Amino acid sequence: MSANPQLDPVLARIDADLPQALDRLMDLLRIPSISTDPAYKPDCARAADWLVADLKGLGFDARAAATPGHPMVVAHGGEGRRHILFYGHYDVQPVDPLALWTRDPFDPAIEDGPKGKVIRARGASDDKGQLMTFIEACRAWKAVHGSLPGNLTIFLEGEEESGSPSLIPFLEANKEELSCDLALICDTGLFDSAVPAITTMLRGLCKAEFTIRAASRDLHSGMYGGLARNPLHVMSRLLAGLHDETGRVQVPGFYDDVEELPESLRAQWQALAFDHGRYLGDVGLSVPAGEQDRTPLEKIWSRPTAEVNGMWGGYTGAGFKTVLPSEAHAKVSFRLVSHQDPVKILTAFRAWAEAQMPPDVTITWHDGVEGAPASVMAISDPAFEAARQALTDEWGRPAAFVGAGGSIPVAGYFKSILGMDAVLIGFGRDDDQIHSPNEKYDLASFHHGIRSWARVLARIA
Amino acid sequence: MSANPQLDPVLARIDADLPQALDRLMDLLRIPSISTDPAYKPDCARAADWLVADLKGLGFDARAAATPGHPMVVAHGGEGRRHILFYGHYDVQPVDPLALWTRDPFDPAIEDGPKGKVIRARGASDDKGQLMTFIEACRAWKAVHGSLPGNLTIFLEGEEESGSPSLIPFLEANKEELSCDLALICDTGLFDSAVPAITTMLRGLCKAEFTIRAASRDLHSGMYGGLARNPLHVMSRLLAGLHDETGRVQVPGFYDDVEELPESLRAQWQALAFDHGRYLGDVGLSVPAGEQDRTPLEKIWSRPTAEVNGMWGGYTGAGFKTVLPSEAHAKVSFRLVSHQDPVKILTAFRAWAEAQMPPDVTITWHDGVEGAPASVMAISDPAFEAARQALTDEWGRPAAFVGAGGSIPVAGYFKSILGMDAVLIGFGRDDDQIHSPNEKYDLASFHHGIRSWARVLARIA
Repeated sequence: MSANPQLDPVLARIDADLPQALDRLMDLLRIPSISTDPAYKPDCARAADWLVADLKGLGFDARAAATPGHPMVVAHGGEGRRHILFYGHYDVQPVDPLALWTRDPFDPAIEDGPKGKVIRARGASDDKGQLMTFIEACRAWKAVHGSLPGNLTIFLEGEEESGSPSLIPFLEANKEELSCDLALICDTGLFDSAVPAITTMLRGLCKAEFTIRAASRDLHSGMYGGLARNPLHVMSRLLAGLHDETGRVQVPGFYDDVEELPESLRAQWQALAFDHGRYLGDVGLSVPAGEQDRTPLEKIWSRPTAEVNGMWGGYTGAGFKTVLPSEAHAKVSFRLVSHQDPVKILTAFRAWAEAQMPPDVTITWHDGVEGAPASVMAISDPAFEAARQALTDEWGRPAAFVGAGGSIPVAGYFKSILGMDAVLIGFGRDDDQIHSPNEKYDLASFHHGIRSWARVLARIA
Repeated sequence: MSANPQLDPVLARIDADLPQALDRLMDLLRIPSISTDPAYKPDCARAADWLVADLKGLGFDARAAATPGHPMVVAHGGEGRRHILFYGHYDVQPVDPLALWTRDPFDPAIEDGPKGKVIRARGASDDKGQLMTFIEACRAWKAVHGSLPGNLTIFLEGEEESGSPSLIPFLEANKEELSCDLALICDTGLFDSAVPAITTMLRGLCKAEFTIRAASRDLHSGMYGGLARNPLHVMSRLLAGLHDETGRVQVPGFYDDVEELPESLRAQWQALAFDHGRYLGDVGLSVPAGEQDRTPLEKIWSRPTAEVNGMWGGYTGAGFKTVLPSEAHAKVSFRLVSHQDPVKILTAFRAWAEAQMPPDVTITWHDGVEGAPASVMAISDPAFEAARQALTDEWGRPAAFVGAGGSIPVAGYFKSILGMDAVLIGFGRDDDQIHSPNEKYDLASFHHGIRSWARVLARIA
């Protein structure tokens, strides 16, 4: 790579300042900001205040904005051609079972791991370590150039690990202040231990819970077996018909708004050489299920699904009861992609199911027709390709636009409420044990993460 | 009907003695012989002793034989060409919820019901009232003729309502003493409120509980949905395939040992004019399910079934969890008819299910391969037709040989252990509320029941 007089001194500064950056992260990690437990409410406020103070020190106009729950940190600063919002969250998961931790989860330390040094603490990876990569990049830039690396808004949530109850109201109430040209979100991971990735498509989700009823009461299978309708049979038939033999969902119109993967992404995904054998092997499986004519990565990133998440009815206790139950129940969810509309999908599913009910059998729906569509970023925005190049430069391996099988709700809200796409970049690794005992963040993730943001900001801000 | 000098005075005696017979039944009903509750163990013994004393008074050689549970009453007496065993049970169901009773369940009374007088008490119908019909018939016969109406063994169990734990060992230990030419069992009902019936075929039963496993742990449907095997889908497909579109069970060989109904029985059943609309309507249904080419009575009496009694897996609590569970569970039972062998049926079912498991999926069986075959009485024995004529004479309506959808285990044990068929005659009605609050027995059932036994014994003993 050729010399870059604007960027190179920033990278050098990051390298030199790493010990101090770690000290700052340690300070933040010591604050037990567990958002779901009311006992830690003062700690959540303390973490927000710590971040506000730190951001003010970098020249941001920063505040901890009160919500009915924990405060939102909002900071503005810098100048640039595009207004960029950065999102992270300062709250952390609970730590129980505490006995499984090898150290106090809020007494962080650098430890030697099998693959190099790691920062061990609750929140090291999810998400304090990650959000600090961005702040440290800003700090180094400011130290070298005397100014922030662009027109930046920093928005840090304190309720991500407890369902984000204040997020939508806050975004709606502060829509003008928070609407930027583009969002950067740092809450994801590398593709694998060394290949950087930008998540550009996240599947949506909609859910249906329903009850199938036949007789008005449970029946004795001796007296009624063979004559009375058994709702467990009806339920089995319904759910068995959800997919055909090739794994294709049978709800009419289900695939109407599903687009094929662009060739450019298909090539990138191919180059990732995803080891589905290992991915499945980790959970005791070996053979890909689902749509037979799709690659494993397509199946989890860019194809919609229909999955039964729960099913029950009749006698489920110990021993036997020869009952024909009056009811059967199921919970079914759909992962959505492309332009699939959750309302349209759920409406089609309901109609499909209702049409199959035999005489005397009713189906009752427990939920409203709602859900979230997929988030598909407009990667034609040059910022995406610029960020990809920046990551490729830092990590020495071609970065890829990847998908995510699950949703990251904030990315959807940024789009639906604030009208901006999000570039999701993160440096977590699969073995970070987020949400589990002994969470860690690789020192390399932290260090290269800071450098990555410097490179990204140099290109896009 | 022509006069019958042997029988007619007995019937007259029964009519005259009815008030005293009711007093005796009341005495027995006052004993709270709840077999499942250890607190009532002395009462069970007291009921057995009461019966022994009563039978001794009729000239029987009677005893209460100890078992690890409640005693068996065994009595022998009389002479005749065939040795006949009568079975009933003196124990009763618990009475809770007590608040729903209109009177103390062990303070019996004659009440006026919408269809005539009834005897209200726990056990009035199931089975004290029924067993006393036989004893009162013997009493009247003895009073008129000075001797019992045949070579009789009376065998009264005290554990029928708590699973009969001592029954098989007792039959095996006393095989020689209890093996007779024919058994009479009084623990069933009329076909409808006025049509008498003899139950000559009882379906058998075998059961299978199993677990289908795919991944080694529950998976997140965002990360694995569309790629990993969902055992709830596998379970749905398996159970959906248990029957074809016409209701026919799909397990290979399932119908191999099923015989068609003899024409004589088909005609009798046809004459019963079974109101399946009301039978189904009572439980909120209207359209017969099951095998499309069979009559409703065949479906519940003479055809085998495969029914899912319980099915569960995944998240079943409130709200939603987008999980792909690692396991799915089911309990399936089969009602058996004719010569179907439970071991053969279960073995075929297991093989059929196992052959359908996709890659990575295992099926585990929780139970041994066991069960009980159907009881099909040899109605070519003239005693059956004689009993049918006797009942027809008493009730003024043609009696029928009927089936029973559920099993009456003692009938099976009499066949398998003692080698004798059983004539199942009873006078209970569908609205007797056995096992429920406010159990009753119609006075007409009791009175005509006693007269019925006198007629039956006159013909067959």
